[in-house]
Amino acid sequence: MIIIGERINGGFKDIVQAVKEKDKSIIQKWARKQTEIGADYIDVNIGAVSNKVEDFLWMIETVQNTVDTPISIDSNKVEFVKKALEICVKEPIINSTTAHEEKLEQMVPLAVQHNASLIGVCMDEKGSPKDANQRVELGAKIFLSATEKGLSPEKIFLDPVTMPLKFLQGQASYVIETLRQFKLLSDPPPHMVIGLSNISSQSKEVRLINRIFLVMAIESGLDAAICDATDEELLNAAITAELILNKQIYSDSFIKAYHAAKGRRI
Amino acid sequence: MIIIGERINGGFKDIVQAVKEKDKSIIQKWARKQTEIGADYIDVNIGAVSNKVEDFLWMIETVQNTVDTPISIDSNKVEFVKKALEICVKEPIINSTTAHEEKLEQMVPLAVQHNASLIGVCMDEKGSPKDANQRVELGAKIFLSATEKGLSPEKIFLDPVTMPLKFLQGQASYVIETLRQFKLLSDPPPHMVIGLSNISSQSKEVRLINRIFLVMAIESGLDAAICDATDEELLNAAITAELILNKQIYSDSFIKAYHAAKGRRI
Repeated sequence: MIIIGERINGGFKDIVQAVKEKDKSIIQKWARKQTEIGADYIDVNIGAVSNKVEDFLWMIETVQNTVDTPISIDSNKVEFVKKALEICVKEPIINSTTAHEEKLEQMVPLAVQHNASLIGVCMDEKGSPKDANQRVELGAKIFLSATEKGLSPEKIFLDPVTMPLKFLQGQASYVIETLRQFKLLSDPPPHMVIGLSNISSQSKEVRLINRIFLVMAIESGLDAAICDATDEELLNAAITAELILNKQIYSDSFIKAYHAAKGRRI
Repeated sequence: MIIIGERINGGFKDIVQAVKEKDKSIIQKWARKQTEIGADYIDVNIGAVSNKVEDFLWMIETVQNTVDTPISIDSNKVEFVKKALEICVKEPIINSTTAHEEKLEQMVPLAVQHNASLIGVCMDEKGSPKDANQRVELGAKIFLSATEKGLSPEKIFLDPVTMPLKFLQGQASYVIETLRQFKLLSDPPPHMVIGLSNISSQSKEVRLINRIFLVMAIESGLDAAICDATDEELLNAAITAELILNKQIYSDSFIKAYHAAKGRRI
């Protein structure tokens, strides 16, 4: 499982404060905590706090000076992505492109040039997908365009777009159906990722819904998630799902073994 | 979700004692507890404690005098099943037949005659299935034989046979694959049930493995489980999985709503 820790995001108040006051300690705390518990990548998103690329680069550098975990460059501004790619120490993920041709033409060559991975979100200039078919179509378009432009399949992460259960309950099944279809795109299939927290947006049982949806998505082919990397119950659920799918050799202490394989001590 | 509470089983020491000493209080306690928390059926299995049918009937009557929950008649002895059917107040489930023709010829007419449901376990005189194909074949045989003999599809529960992850790790994926195939047997599909606790047999993380496997199975079409009906976390996981699959209308208090719809107060 590839866990992309979502916590260093300008949507959180303490991150807003950290950026405004250039308070490294908050960024450092979350970089460490996410890495220690479960993150394979640290997502960095400046949100609406600042539109200065220097501030975004400061966030990334603060993370990189704290932990070895690679960066998920989370921005829809090409300039931000470009500059971030130049300072990334380990191979990052670009989060993200859409299926919009113009966007693909900007983002794919950047990924190729910097040996970065690329998340492709199944939407385009017309907006969000309504059903599984539209998601599969958009995902296939991203996959084909990216491979044609020279990005190797194992660098591509398709995101079927997760929507809040509370408002669009029927969409969850479409996401699951889409993951199953993505499996057939290539052999081996591309990575598949979801922005997990969207599913429980404005729900009361946030952690429970996240956890159960993640397990269902893993059963359908998902191998990556942008999520709360500090939620141990969530991680344990994901690890157990992979064990059941025979993706990790059984041992009674399989959770410990998972973390040990990632170089983590728990 | 149809939950069949597994706890009144001669495999547990307190049940052995209850049967030997004709101590109703232990049976009553588990009948009540399972019903209050999550059971839609109470499985009754005498195990190796006694081979007297009177003792089995005493267990069933003790349950029926305590709660309104229908019985899952868990015995492979035809005589036990026959006698039990005669005293069941509510429509029971017979647990179980296999695909063995001789067994089907005994059990299906009994189910038809008593308006009972019937669990069909995907094994036969040759033993346990090795892969998904064998399971699907055996399940289809049971389904066709039972419907031909007059049992209506909604009374049939197919059980793909769950094996311990610890010893047969690859089998879990076959169970999931089989459930997906069972969906295609008829429209609406037959019920699908698993003996959940088998998956975690002799594992350390029993509850975690049970919970995650149940969610994956529900995602694949499962709508019933023989399991620990007193494990609230397990129930909450199952309820959430069904919510995500749009089988219950969303509300912030969806767990409460689930139990209220079943007439339970929590």
